[in-house]
Amino acid sequence: MCDLFKDPFAPRLKPMHQSPVRENLTDYFARVRNQSAALCEPLEVEDFGIQSMPDASPIKWHLAHTSWFFETMLLQPYLSDYASFNDAFAHLFNSYYESFGTFHPRPERGLLSRPTVKEVFAYRAHVDAAMGALLAQEDHDNRDDIGMRTVLGLNHEQQHQELMLTDIKHAFFKNPLRPAYRTAAAPAPADSAPSPEWLTLDGGLVQIGHEGAAFAYDNESPRHKAYLTPYALAGAPVTNGEYLAFIEADGYRDPDLWLSDAWATIKSEGWCAPLYWEQRSDGDWWRHTLSGMQPVDLVAPVSHVSFYEAAAFARWRGKRLPTEAEWEHAASQFGREGHFADSGILDPRSLQGDAANHQFFGDVWEWTASPYCEYPGYQRLSGPFGEYNGKFMSSQMVLRGGSCVTPSDHIRPSYRNFFYPQTRWQFSGFRLAEDR
Amino acid sequence: MCDLFKDPFAPRLKPMHQSPVRENLTDYFARVRNQSAALCEPLEVEDFGIQSMPDASPIKWHLAHTSWFFETMLLQPYLSDYASFNDAFAHLFNSYYESFGTFHPRPERGLLSRPTVKEVFAYRAHVDAAMGALLAQEDHDNRDDIGMRTVLGLNHEQQHQELMLTDIKHAFFKNPLRPAYRTAAAPAPADSAPSPEWLTLDGGLVQIGHEGAAFAYDNESPRHKAYLTPYALAGAPVTNGEYLAFIEADGYRDPDLWLSDAWATIKSEGWCAPLYWEQRSDGDWWRHTLSGMQPVDLVAPVSHVSFYEAAAFARWRGKRLPTEAEWEHAASQFGREGHFADSGILDPRSLQGDAANHQFFGDVWEWTASPYCEYPGYQRLSGPFGEYNGKFMSSQMVLRGGSCVTPSDHIRPSYRNFFYPQTRWQFSGFRLAEDR
Amino acid sequence: MCDLFKDPFAPRLKPMHQSPVRENLTDYFARVRNQSAALCEPLEVEDFGIQSMPDASPIKWHLAHTSWFFETMLLQPYLSDYASFNDAFAHLFNSYYESFGTFHPRPERGLLSRPTVKEVFAYRAHVDAAMGALLAQEDHDNRDDIGMRTVLGLNHEQQHQELMLTDIKHAFFKNPLRPAYRTAAAPAPADSAPSPEWLTLDGGLVQIGHEGAAFAYDNESPRHKAYLTPYALAGAPVTNGEYLAFIEADGYRDPDLWLSDAWATIKSEGWCAPLYWEQRSDGDWWRHTLSGMQPVDLVAPVSHVSFYEAAAFARWRGKRLPTEAEWEHAASQFGREGHFADSGILDPRSLQGDAANHQFFGDVWEWTASPYCEYPGYQRLSGPFGEYNGKFMSSQMVLRGGSCVTPSDHIRPSYRNFFYPQTRWQFSGFRLAEDR
Amino acid sequence: MCDLFKDPFAPRLKPMHQSPVRENLTDYFARVRNQSAALCEPLEVEDFGIQSMPDASPIKWHLAHTSWFFETMLLQPYLSDYASFNDAFAHLFNSYYESFGTFHPRPERGLLSRPTVKEVFAYRAHVDAAMGALLAQEDHDNRDDIGMRTVLGLNHEQQHQELMLTDIKHAFFKNPLRPAYRTAAAPAPADSAPSPEWLTLDGGLVQIGHEGAAFAYDNESPRHKAYLTPYALAGAPVTNGEYLAFIEADGYRDPDLWLSDAWATIKSEGWCAPLYWEQRSDGDWWRHTLSGMQPVDLVAPVSHVSFYEAAAFARWRGKRLPTEAEWEHAASQFGREGHFADSGILDPRSLQGDAANHQFFGDVWEWTASPYCEYPGYQRLSGPFGEYNGKFMSSQMVLRGGSCVTPSDHIRPSYRNFFYPQTRWQFSGFRLAEDR
Repeated sequence: MCDLFKDPFAPRLKPMHQSPVRENLTDYFARVRNQSAALCEPLEVEDFGIQSMPDASPIKWHLAHTSWFFETMLLQPYLSDYASFNDAFAHLFNSYYESFGTFHPRPERGLLSRPTVKEVFAYRAHVDAAMGALLAQEDHDNRDDIGMRTVLGLNHEQQHQELMLTDIKHAFFKNPLRPAYRTAAAPAPADSAPSPEWLTLDGGLVQIGHEGAAFAYDNESPRHKAYLTPYALAGAPVTNGEYLAFIEADGYRDPDLWLSDAWATIKSEGWCAPLYWEQRSDGDWWRHTLSGMQPVDLVAPVSHVSFYEAAAFARWRGKRLPTEAEWEHAASQFGREGHFADSGILDPRSLQGDAANHQFFGDVWEWTASPYCEYPGYQRLSGPFGEYNGKFMSSQMVLRGGSCVTPSDHIRPSYRNFFYPQTRWQFSGFRLAEDR
Repeated sequence: MCDLFKDPFAPRLKPMHQSPVRENLTDYFARVRNQSAALCEPLEVEDFGIQSMPDASPIKWHLAHTSWFFETMLLQPYLSDYASFNDAFAHLFNSYYESFGTFHPRPERGLLSRPTVKEVFAYRAHVDAAMGALLAQEDHDNRDDIGMRTVLGLNHEQQHQELMLTDIKHAFFKNPLRPAYRTAAAPAPADSAPSPEWLTLDGGLVQIGHEGAAFAYDNESPRHKAYLTPYALAGAPVTNGEYLAFIEADGYRDPDLWLSDAWATIKSEGWCAPLYWEQRSDGDWWRHTLSGMQPVDLVAPVSHVSFYEAAAFARWRGKRLPTEAEWEHAASQFGREGHFADSGILDPRSLQGDAANHQFFGDVWEWTASPYCEYPGYQRLSGPFGEYNGKFMSSQMVLRGGSCVTPSDHIRPSYRNFFYPQTRWQFSGFRLAEDR
Repeated sequence: MCDLFKDPFAPRLKPMHQSPVRENLTDYFARVRNQSAALCEPLEVEDFGIQSMPDASPIKWHLAHTSWFFETMLLQPYLSDYASFNDAFAHLFNSYYESFGTFHPRPERGLLSRPTVKEVFAYRAHVDAAMGALLAQEDHDNRDDIGMRTVLGLNHEQQHQELMLTDIKHAFFKNPLRPAYRTAAAPAPADSAPSPEWLTLDGGLVQIGHEGAAFAYDNESPRHKAYLTPYALAGAPVTNGEYLAFIEADGYRDPDLWLSDAWATIKSEGWCAPLYWEQRSDGDWWRHTLSGMQPVDLVAPVSHVSFYEAAAFARWRGKRLPTEAEWEHAASQFGREGHFADSGILDPRSLQGDAANHQFFGDVWEWTASPYCEYPGYQRLSGPFGEYNGKFMSSQMVLRGGSCVTPSDHIRPSYRNFFYPQTRWQFSGFRLAEDR
Repeated sequence: MCDLFKDPFAPRLKPMHQSPVRENLTDYFARVRNQSAALCEPLEVEDFGIQSMPDASPIKWHLAHTSWFFETMLLQPYLSDYASFNDAFAHLFNSYYESFGTFHPRPERGLLSRPTVKEVFAYRAHVDAAMGALLAQEDHDNRDDIGMRTVLGLNHEQQHQELMLTDIKHAFFKNPLRPAYRTAAAPAPADSAPSPEWLTLDGGLVQIGHEGAAFAYDNESPRHKAYLTPYALAGAPVTNGEYLAFIEADGYRDPDLWLSDAWATIKSEGWCAPLYWEQRSDGDWWRHTLSGMQPVDLVAPVSHVSFYEAAAFARWRGKRLPTEAEWEHAASQFGREGHFADSGILDPRSLQGDAANHQFFGDVWEWTASPYCEYPGYQRLSGPFGEYNGKFMSSQMVLRGGSCVTPSDHIRPSYRNFFYPQTRWQFSGFRLAEDR
């Protein structure tokens, strides 16, 4: 059975690689829920409703959907006499759970002017109050399951916190006025690029996958053996400067570098640089960021590239991308020194000094060479929880490590993120690997 | 030369078929501009941003675009030292005028959270103040042209007032919560359907097209001769009750009734009733209206049907649709007794009593059998004004008479509205005709 | 009642504007049917199966469909004991007649390797033999209707003869080898362009539509009055040389010249010249013809342009296109001196000498400014014959005059051809008109 | 370096698991090339040109493309004074090799009536003669490379032989006449389904990938270690009877069984059974086969299912699909007793007796759970050979074992076929696996 359903309490609340703060569940719930609201502070009412493409969702929808999750998974089954805020929300704010009946078509999430922002916050308050009452029932017959589901719901909410930043960035990009989410200036970039060393690893029969009792998603289990031939990894992700050299070497015009699907995509989409890059008439490259348009910072990790572009760059350099097993085996040996959402920078940065030699976490999600599949022995959960991860195991690629918009207590070496190979609106970069 | 550029002042300000109120231009400007704002009173901030399909636009966009029109056509050329509110709006709020450079892609009008609603109203105030200054310059060198363009701009604004109601109705329809624009109950429908008489007309060599000095669009001119064979027109538009009989007679399943393009459309779109109609599980038909979901009123004119449906119904009844010349020749002989936006009903109603025998204006736009073409001798205007009407003269059909959301002083017998034959989100109905 | 069902025999067999050869129906049937086979002589077996786009059909399909028409409209109802050649053909070779049940999807006509070409010719022989037997029954109870339907079927076959040439031209164009249908060289073009005079017409209340007892389609009736204001027509269609000047003046880049739908089309399709034109690296323009690639003949009428291009050219020249009434009223006053399929040239040519001042027939179909609509008093036929013309009366434009691939006895002043405004694979050109 | 470029001669010519016939290269060339022609014997000239969907190609195109391969890879670089048959074929019959310049758009392969079938066979004869001359040059400076490329070209031709049968089956299916490729009756199916045992395997650290000097594609190398947890495999693929039970249990209507992409696909495509299955009005299921329409044989392996359907069936049964490593590790331990193209049956059949307990090869390609990726240490070849396999390594799934239309000397345990998860026109089935 998956870790998700084992011993859910205190141990899950100890974030890995962090100071061992012990929160009780009520505090943990409040902390994460409040963080969602805090992210909305810079926004105007009008900003909450925009869906700039089918992959993205309106901020308002994220706020309501995460509440729907608690209402549906916890309050409906476990809080006696719970009165739903609005019965129609069961349909409106279900994302993709076939188990719970119908859902509003994803591409039409931006067409809902009602409920208003004010009503959505009232919905959140209604759910929070009811969750408070439920969590206070320490002798509830289903206390264990309530704990497990609450922890899952809070991790789910953190995923949506990341998406809120990712999606509002895209929404503002589609507006020619290019609004900035973050009006304070972002910290200045470093003066010079680090020159990280390559890390050499022996491989052999190693173990990967989630270990221990702390929370992890079902797709990280079971921990299992994998055989790795000797390999080396770059100590840090590829930078904007390195990527610009690829652009200037006409990398986007050489079909030999690209996978067949990739070549078709870059031709049909007209891609010639990462998403959000724009070359001005003077030849300079600028990037749309959460702090508005900024010059491309050559020493920072490249982000908003697709798997296709990562793979083409690697081939151009005579290298390859790491597999997820290679990445996890290496990353497990180092600390988490990158920038997360908590830093407030919200833009990838390179590490400096010795940390530049092992920058695995934060800043950019890293595309791996691994399609997103079941681990050996994986059991897809039954019912709605089985829809959380298992049903997406086709045609997507695994990314690792978290990014500058990931909450810092939401990442671990075994964490598997996954997107289609053409996806670019995530803060996605990559590092190089090679055989040894 | 087109009427638009002849003697634009007082005569244009005398709405046809109305009490001869004479307004000065400043009052006329204020009256129409204020009406746009008044239409927004029932709306929440969130409602202003929704674009439910590419044909529709957000309320906010309508408010800004109509202001852009005055800014671009009047303030920029004629008000010295005019400072634009925001230079980026020239791109954002241009609708389709190639003459004025680029414009934001129409299907992406709903992706603009900024400018906010508050900023858009500030933009309107900025333009209104500048227009006030311009209109006050009675000795301006271009006073005639300023007058003409202002009148055009106000008619343009009235067209968008109609679209605001049409578009918000559609936006609310796409929301499963089905919000109502008008919370007060609409007046109760009539108890029984009128049985209007058919009107018989001799035809012969008649004149159609705009006559006189009052304002009219260029596409209504020149007034010209047309030969009509003897014909008859139904005294009123087809009702919901009559249309329901067509549905129940399986009219949507008989290919013999439909034009070839129409049959392909109803099959691909799955149409089996007018837009906004829904049949409940008990068999009753309901309609989404600006007052929310309401039972289908059998005695009211059918609306939200396409030309294709109008033509199929007519063939089913062994009749045809009138040509626009037939319609105009007949309608010119009667007064305007229908319901317009000013009535506040905002839903089609049948007339009662004698008026039911000649209901030509208001309530529903009436599809005619006439494709939208140039009149003999029509001269498309040069420059931006030539883009107003002339460039749409292909593949669209003419509708006549105005609807329940048309301002009452915005209609006349010669008024030519035009939409593609598959269009349904307008308040569009039709009447029957036959040869005599 | 439509002419089609009045007195179908001898009068219909007298082609207009021709020497009054009187054929009996059997000879007429044989002559037209044999002509279809004769058109296939230059083809390889493989050529019969190609469908290069949904609008076009394979040659084999044309041969079978025209036979299906006789089988379905005549042999099945009127020849006792008729045994169908293959029951499956009722589905395979029905074009679009809903009255006759299902039909094979139009875009998939090119996917049918069977029946083979040999089998299709056997099908034709089977139908021809049965038709011979039917036509020989001079005392058949339905002799009148048989005659009418046979004449209709032969006119239908002639339409498909034109399409066979139009479609094979397109099929060969899609092949980079650019095969030639006609291997003999086409006659050399004229040395110099004629300079035709403009024809001035008084207009007034005129009559248009089919007159007399000879065969005509239902859409040409009834003959009716129309009022024309004074106008002038160019004596001949616009030439390639004139059109090239439009290209070189950047006509394809000036949005002011184009209808809104047209501008969207030329941008999405990337049009910058007529269909079949190609500019070589030396700057010279060449055209794909039924005789293979040929230099653009500057003195010949331009062809393979859409209505959109015709209208843009006219606007560029400060003129307009003629209405179909204007065209017919003028053309009725002149003889038919152009080149038809019978000439064997199969490519548009200008007339020389005095005839150049009134070249109305042959060479190129001429786009008019008139959408394809019902004439006043038109009665769409019931049943399958009603599907022949009436159901296409939306969103298409009327063309007049026939082309270089039209059989010469298949045209008349009242003949109305119709295509969508973006259509280009027909031999379509145009002439200019203006108000007087 | 990949096996393809090591010691290409005699060893490669020893098909695995076969009697050790040693052919010289000239005989091998003639044998394979003649087989392509032999496959065409049942076809009419018209059949050679059909392309029923973009994934499929016309028979004529296969015949020409395989010749283009020899012309481009061998004759152009190595046969002095070689005169190409037709220079335009370099463009027309290049499939997807960017290295060799442009190629004709894949979806338009069916629009080429020329070259004719006769000309294509002349092209083949031209190439065969030149290849004969080249292979006779035993002291050619590039003899080794010539040998390697010839062997690759013949394996390439065998892949296209399989596609010829796959594609003509689909082409005939799109024709309502449902022609049969194979007019002789296929051998009767077995009376009863075998009940194969499950095979239990210990796994551990095993080796997979191509071993030895015989020919293999680059994607099968290098041989490498993989760690397998204990597992079990069904001894034979799932049968039609078992699959019918899934259909009858409403498997196609239960979203819980399907991957997210899969559910979207079956809804948009309307799938409710394998490709080629049709349920008649009496409830019986029939299948289109190369011998025409046949009743579904309940005891034969199911074929023409997508990966999506295979995975949903496995989930319904509480099992999973095997990984490619699991499959190869098991299959290597058994002989090849299934039916290949050489059998002439051209339809999947179950094995009987003891062989039914380990039916790994022939009859149906088996979907595995493994996305198509690089093996550890894989080096994509440079230049055109690098386009053969490497550029397709994204978003496709691996299939193993060959099918009833695969030449028997073209398969081996390490052979990796790959298609997108929605592909169904291949003879694709699957077997079940589970953890032990």
